[in-house]
Amino acid sequence: MKALDYARAHGDRFLSELNEFLSIPSISTHERHRPAVLEAAEWLRDRLLAAGFPRAEVMPTPGHPIVYAEWLPAGPVSPTVLVYGHYDVQPPDPLDLWRTPPFEPTRVGDDLFCRGASDDKGQLYVHLKAVEAFRETAGAPPVNVKCIFEGEEESGSPNLDPFIQQHRELLAADVGLISDTDILDRDTPAIVYGLRGIAYLEVEVTGPAGDLHSGSYGGAVHNPINALCAMIASLQDADGRITIPGFYDSVRQLEDEERAELAKVPFDRQDWLQEAGVKTDWGEPEYTITERTTARPTLDVNGIWGGYMEPGTKTVLPSNAYAKISTRLVPDQDPAEISRLIQRHMKAIAPPTVSVEVRELHLGDGAIVRRDSPAMQAACRAYAAGFGAEPVFKRTGGSIPVVATLQKELGIEAILMGFGLPDDNLHAPNEKLHLPNFHRGIETAIHFFQFLAG
Amino acid sequence: MKALDYARAHGDRFLSELNEFLSIPSISTHERHRPAVLEAAEWLRDRLLAAGFPRAEVMPTPGHPIVYAEWLPAGPVSPTVLVYGHYDVQPPDPLDLWRTPPFEPTRVGDDLFCRGASDDKGQLYVHLKAVEAFRETAGAPPVNVKCIFEGEEESGSPNLDPFIQQHRELLAADVGLISDTDILDRDTPAIVYGLRGIAYLEVEVTGPAGDLHSGSYGGAVHNPINALCAMIASLQDADGRITIPGFYDSVRQLEDEERAELAKVPFDRQDWLQEAGVKTDWGEPEYTITERTTARPTLDVNGIWGGYMEPGTKTVLPSNAYAKISTRLVPDQDPAEISRLIQRHMKAIAPPTVSVEVRELHLGDGAIVRRDSPAMQAACRAYAAGFGAEPVFKRTGGSIPVVATLQKELGIEAILMGFGLPDDNLHAPNEKLHLPNFHRGIETAIHFFQFLAG
Repeated sequence: MKALDYARAHGDRFLSELNEFLSIPSISTHERHRPAVLEAAEWLRDRLLAAGFPRAEVMPTPGHPIVYAEWLPAGPVSPTVLVYGHYDVQPPDPLDLWRTPPFEPTRVGDDLFCRGASDDKGQLYVHLKAVEAFRETAGAPPVNVKCIFEGEEESGSPNLDPFIQQHRELLAADVGLISDTDILDRDTPAIVYGLRGIAYLEVEVTGPAGDLHSGSYGGAVHNPINALCAMIASLQDADGRITIPGFYDSVRQLEDEERAELAKVPFDRQDWLQEAGVKTDWGEPEYTITERTTARPTLDVNGIWGGYMEPGTKTVLPSNAYAKISTRLVPDQDPAEISRLIQRHMKAIAPPTVSVEVRELHLGDGAIVRRDSPAMQAACRAYAAGFGAEPVFKRTGGSIPVVATLQKELGIEAILMGFGLPDDNLHAPNEKLHLPNFHRGIETAIHFFQFLAG
Repeated sequence: MKALDYARAHGDRFLSELNEFLSIPSISTHERHRPAVLEAAEWLRDRLLAAGFPRAEVMPTPGHPIVYAEWLPAGPVSPTVLVYGHYDVQPPDPLDLWRTPPFEPTRVGDDLFCRGASDDKGQLYVHLKAVEAFRETAGAPPVNVKCIFEGEEESGSPNLDPFIQQHRELLAADVGLISDTDILDRDTPAIVYGLRGIAYLEVEVTGPAGDLHSGSYGGAVHNPINALCAMIASLQDADGRITIPGFYDSVRQLEDEERAELAKVPFDRQDWLQEAGVKTDWGEPEYTITERTTARPTLDVNGIWGGYMEPGTKTVLPSNAYAKISTRLVPDQDPAEISRLIQRHMKAIAPPTVSVEVRELHLGDGAIVRRDSPAMQAACRAYAAGFGAEPVFKRTGGSIPVVATLQKELGIEAILMGFGLPDDNLHAPNEKLHLPNFHRGIETAIHFFQFLAG
């Protein structure tokens, strides 16, 4: 196929374009990065136009804009693919743990280090280059392509669902395509068919009205940090089982058949320990590590703070203590219901000596995608052609709430055609993209469009 | 007494000098304030010389300097008083809770708001003005006076004990005098005879080698924040009893006689709740609030931090979590022994999924002072003359480790002649000094020197 030859011949240019994209610090969670987020959106629109999309625009939302593009050259009888991705990135902190500047793409061997390299700029850019390859060699892609790239994925996509609801006709498609997941290893592609949902809350415990001297009041005033720690500690037993009443009520139990299938995904405990950087695993002993991280709900404190946090000593009994707490949810847990359960439980276990406020920061639905659709078959064949190996099916621990939204609002299933690797350091210092995956990804996307066209 | 008349006539000038002193942000816990700490030491030396001390100097230590002064006009048969105080102050944070700038002394009614106003600049300065009043009216004070003012009290006095050990002859005295405590209320003076010790540690819990994505690893990697919270929660039962093995072994039990005496200290629970800013008290139910805050050991988390602490969400499973933990100790608990117990216990309860480091930040001895010495009698009479009321004897919750050092190294007991009030907001925003106490304090100090001379 000529499109493949074209992609191979222009790989270096594709990469230097990606470097430009990565250099824009489009961190969506901080107001001060708003100009960079907009710059990334406009850059992306320009590259979509350059790739051949006749329509590409930066569409406003109440938050960061959505970049929409479409090219419908194949006519109404051919399938329409809706490509979703996100051009925003996680904050880079803790900065001191980065070995290279987080927004200066740095190539080390076959890896490209930069915030957003894998999540998700590098993966989304694959599809622009696949379309460009068809434009330059066949005049147009063999299917209709629509793109929706948001700038708020890392801050909970507050405006994505309303946007999709308001633009159902514009976004109408036959299948979704998302590259924002990882494969098993360099040579073993994988398609994620199950995703966890999320409920992310912030807890504020207030003790005394103002900070007190711990020498003068310690022993008779309940310290809100001690109280918060006790509340958090009580949310789980020693094996990580969550003790919030009702939390597991809606959990769809893993069937033996699915457990057997998941057990087929190659897994090496030593490799996993190495990659995670831990001496031993933790969690529900009756489930495997794979099951615990993909098919079981969890509860993590993502942040905690209160009192004196600088060097040296301060004998303060603080007024407040705070924690950010998130739970990963599995089918059929409803994030809004779980959020309510957590809020109610935190109030219920708060001792009478303090007051507690719980704020909901983000909810996201999980999803399960069918493994036997024609689009899924095309994706399997595309991977086989692009990577030389059939993909394995797996569930993943992260949340891609848009998968549930596409099902609910547009009635389409999404193919999660990922090109990342498990050690890409997503949301952590030294995020990277394995460059051979970038180029194989472009070829896989070209194959996918071709196979989908039939 | 003419010295009293002089003090009354020059109160306004004394106050404007104090304002100068308070304006120097001599925060000892931060390296960046080193110049201000030195400035405060030199200012104090100059004021000592101006008050009449023939010798006053800034003496170096490996940390912040000690200001030493002496005036021995009364000869060897008269008693020598060693006045201790500290010219450093606590950090002012959280800054946003101050109603006036923390280092701009601001008078509101009878109160002077400023960091250090009560702890300890305002209380220490009383003694310089008492000496000056004798100099101007009688040529010299009726007793010998030595002063030792340190600049590291708020950072654990790391160089005070070595300094005292190295200068035993220079510092030789008959009685110590320290004004760094509070009285019961405006009209009820109090002498503290019991102080709590302290062991202040920092705990670091490490989980994975680097920050991880909580979606990818949550459920199978132990989150160090969750682990730290569980460890902290387990250190106390619901009533605040400390569960560290051996922690209470050396605690000198309160005798019925002393409990009866402490119960005589006027205490209004509603006032206390109001002052503490809490809806209800907390802690060991078998002890009164007064006992819990002065005669029982405690454990407070003074600070906690880890993971993502900024606005918005970040789904991080962090590598580390930290806490600053201090215990207040009573006779006969040994801070070094308690520190060892805590360190050993934290290691013992750490789950195998994380590693724990405990660093000792500060140790301080508690103390009990005799209530029947001649100096104590002189102090009681001085208060009665200065405040128009006999002082009550009380124990206090804070630590003034120098009291134990003076006993151990110089063989002298210290009179804790405080002039602060319980609502002075020590170590908290909006620290203040009640100005009538400043002036009554000067008069009380004048009386004390006179009564002590016999």
